[in-house]
Amino acid sequence: MLGNFTFCNPTRLYFGEGSLKRLNEELPKYGETVQLVYGGGSIRKNGIYDQVIKLLRDNGKRIVEDGGVMPNPTVEKVYEGSRIARENNVALILAVGGGSCCDYAKAVSVSAWCQEDPWQKYYLNFQDVDADTKIIPVGCVLTMVGTGSEMNGGAVITNHEQKLKIGHVFGDNVFPKFSILDPTFTYTLPKYQMVSGIYDIFNHICEQYFSGEDDNTSDYISEGLMRSVIHSSRIAIQNPRDYEARSNLMWTATWALNTLVAQGKTTDWMVHMIGQAVGAYTDATHGMTLAAVSMAYYRHICPYGLEKFARFAKNVWNVQTNGKTTEQIAAEGLDCMESWMKELGLVMNITDLGATKDMIPGIADSTIMLTDGYKALTKDEVVEILRESL
Amino acid sequence: MLGNFTFCNPTRLYFGEGSLKRLNEELPKYGETVQLVYGGGSIRKNGIYDQVIKLLRDNGKRIVEDGGVMPNPTVEKVYEGSRIARENNVALILAVGGGSCCDYAKAVSVSAWCQEDPWQKYYLNFQDVDADTKIIPVGCVLTMVGTGSEMNGGAVITNHEQKLKIGHVFGDNVFPKFSILDPTFTYTLPKYQMVSGIYDIFNHICEQYFSGEDDNTSDYISEGLMRSVIHSSRIAIQNPRDYEARSNLMWTATWALNTLVAQGKTTDWMVHMIGQAVGAYTDATHGMTLAAVSMAYYRHICPYGLEKFARFAKNVWNVQTNGKTTEQIAAEGLDCMESWMKELGLVMNITDLGATKDMIPGIADSTIMLTDGYKALTKDEVVEILRESL
Repeated sequence: MLGNFTFCNPTRLYFGEGSLKRLNEELPKYGETVQLVYGGGSIRKNGIYDQVIKLLRDNGKRIVEDGGVMPNPTVEKVYEGSRIARENNVALILAVGGGSCCDYAKAVSVSAWCQEDPWQKYYLNFQDVDADTKIIPVGCVLTMVGTGSEMNGGAVITNHEQKLKIGHVFGDNVFPKFSILDPTFTYTLPKYQMVSGIYDIFNHICEQYFSGEDDNTSDYISEGLMRSVIHSSRIAIQNPRDYEARSNLMWTATWALNTLVAQGKTTDWMVHMIGQAVGAYTDATHGMTLAAVSMAYYRHICPYGLEKFARFAKNVWNVQTNGKTTEQIAAEGLDCMESWMKELGLVMNITDLGATKDMIPGIADSTIMLTDGYKALTKDEVVEILRESL
Repeated sequence: MLGNFTFCNPTRLYFGEGSLKRLNEELPKYGETVQLVYGGGSIRKNGIYDQVIKLLRDNGKRIVEDGGVMPNPTVEKVYEGSRIARENNVALILAVGGGSCCDYAKAVSVSAWCQEDPWQKYYLNFQDVDADTKIIPVGCVLTMVGTGSEMNGGAVITNHEQKLKIGHVFGDNVFPKFSILDPTFTYTLPKYQMVSGIYDIFNHICEQYFSGEDDNTSDYISEGLMRSVIHSSRIAIQNPRDYEARSNLMWTATWALNTLVAQGKTTDWMVHMIGQAVGAYTDATHGMTLAAVSMAYYRHICPYGLEKFARFAKNVWNVQTNGKTTEQIAAEGLDCMESWMKELGLVMNITDLGATKDMIPGIADSTIMLTDGYKALTKDEVVEILRESL
């Protein structure tokens, strides 16, 4: 049954090749000083940096640089970005990059004028952003696909000292005001990053799909999104410059995590919790940490959500059902998923990500335990899943 | 290929049983005078009227009544409502009803302070709402499901004198500011209205699905939505008080026509054009006019979009494909659709809606001709489809 909910997603999306110039419509809405957030400098090589700088200058903006956002943005970087924002009285934070840059921009947005320690408030105490919190508006120019951060109100931040990587959803008012999605901006991404992002999309849908006994419209939409990801991913790994495939992946990523397919239902998110703990120990690419623990996790919980896994097999993977038990159908669906993941070239174990057997107790210990999946795991089960993922 | 587009859908939705009380969060945002729009008075019988009045009074509102909105709102009614809005300097138009009430409220919203004749400007000349147009904000409390009007910027208005029924999409700023969707509010609707709404949902998706040669994420989402409608409709006709089925139908209706599944692709809308012309002649219920012409239309255009109709058969109706030609698969999908429509008890011909053979030239003549379907029809073909629909 669809539970009660409020849906509001006000982010304005400009989609398609050449849409960067739509900054000309958005920039005049904000004050003079723009904090330009980006990562390791790939946007300098592919020319996007120069295009953005020109558009900012054309619109009379004062640019405050804030580059060097790492793949898993750290709390120290958030403190630094918040100081930059405060000291410059920034009117708009413009993130140019992937989910890490967008997440980081949102974290700075709510932290810059926060009276308390933002890590404590938002990430350890999971507090919402108050209505009277002073927030700096965020805009995004997406160059990597996967996290959905361009149209939601969440951000994942890593605290290496505490060995914690935590995602928090701030609320409606922290959604980017606008996001620019040009599929051609993702062409130059290395294949490793591309497939990592593709699995991130797929897993976002899985996390929301594999929970609840109910028969919910969201699950039908999720099945459509998963079929689209599978289809387009197979084209994209053959030809990364296939505009249709890359644009479908970009669009699917947005809808996989902009709150739509979670409305009115419970959600799981344990693959993310375990994967993020692996990430906190290894600093591995987010999507790969999810891939590396997924098969062990889903095979572990499959008996507890058998009907849904059988539905997944039929509706997503076209598994023929004649003469098979529900168990067989469900298992065949997971086999199809595993084959597809290998076809993409995903990392299928945590050993290849740098995790070792002796890290397992620590990783399990820093795994945040959620209980809305088909099976509320014990810490022993997390250890077991991690061992099977070695 | 996904064409370029801008997506922005800022309507805030409150979904679920008991969500009417969320008016307490919305009403304080607007000025004193509320124009209360409703239809023929069913909301007085089922108690919704009293609940709304109490909430308006509790929030200190002055209520200006504007009831009697007909199933196909007329241009004369829009002129009258606009006068009421102007004379009372209305701050919020609150529509309580189905798509007709929501559409009417939006038409009044843009017409009240319009310096030109709104019928001429918006419906004959298809002009957009200018950025500087004075608009009265609209909120909706939905009591009938189908049109999707609760989360889009369009409105269908009928001009009986000119025998025209025209839908126009005004733009982002005319989207309802909020909509309240309580599935239990739809329980008391007569079955005829319920199934009419269900087919309206399904046909909205068809209109957007059956166009373009491309392989678009939107089409995958559409397939998921169609499967959800088919599934839940079969439960709802057996038990109209099945909360899960009615809530899924309500939610699907919103997403079928809130611009999502049309993004980046061409769309057809000829069933609506022909159906609306039938409606202008017969004043029949909107969804039934669509149902009555659909099978003739889709069988007519099937050869021109054969691959898509075969995909529809496989992905929506689970048609087995072994040993069959594409033509056979496509035809079987349409047969499945026809069987389901009959199962719902839809009106399958225009004769039962009051149309006669001699009306056909007039109906064809007032059919607005669009050209983005699989076949750009001639007027002769419209006549042929109408004859087959008799």
